[in-house]
Amino acid sequence: MSGKVIELENIKPDFEKTGGLLPAVVQDAKTGEILMLAYMNYESFQQTLITGEVHYWSRSRRELWHKGGGSSGRVQKVKALYLDCDLDAILIKIEQVGGISCHTGRRSCFHYQLGIDQKFRLVED
Amino acid sequence: MSGKVIELENIKPDFEKTGGLLPAVVQDAKTGEILMLAYMNYESFQQTLITGEVHYWSRSRRELWHKGGGSSGRVQKVKALYLDCDLDAILIKIEQVGGISCHTGRRSCFHYQLGIDQKFRLVED
Repeated sequence: MSGKVIELENIKPDFEKTGGLLPAVVQDAKTGEILMLAYMNYESFQQTLITGEVHYWSRSRRELWHKGGGSSGRVQKVKALYLDCDLDAILIKIEQVGGISCHTGRRSCFHYQLGIDQKFRLVED
Repeated sequence: MSGKVIELENIKPDFEKTGGLLPAVVQDAKTGEILMLAYMNYESFQQTLITGEVHYWSRSRRELWHKGGGSSGRVQKVKALYLDCDLDAILIKIEQVGGISCHTGRRSCFHYQLGIDQKFRLVED
């Protein structure tokens, strides 16, 4: 029993394995819709835990990114957070303030759907 | 109008951007549960489209990985496939044959949940 507890005390994101960044899948806590995928480093993970609002590492700007923390106010409130079996992927169930996660103004970033002709099409909300 | 069509003809996964591998989020098409996250290269993406069963690139074994294609038979049948706004993340809605996606024998790979004490706990199906 104590052995099992010790094992679980060691469960944490393995940022070392992948050069410091892990993918974070973001899911609407109510609807189950996948809203986006972004990346976290140790600092953004810690800030997410401390604030209860999702922080990422912006690979393009190379800086900590408090999603919605600027003028839009479209922050992502953490409702639940999971790690996968290999400790190298994160799943976050959120409440998306303002209802829009994508920088294109759409609810979800995953708006290109593969058709039966094997071409992608824009799917609007 | 023709301009819009041309734009959409160019919508495809941008494997060049990230060294050849893109993260693929795998979601149960019926329940919306997130089952796993793995990686695809161009070849595995093409094999997925051709066969209708999900293929990945195994980073540990460095080889094409037909999920469930071995003795387990637990293949993942593609029900829908999406790309995100930046064309560098894939979302696949699947039917999981046999109901088990994780190599640990669990339905989903995301079975460690963060508790209010900021520690992760194993959540069984």
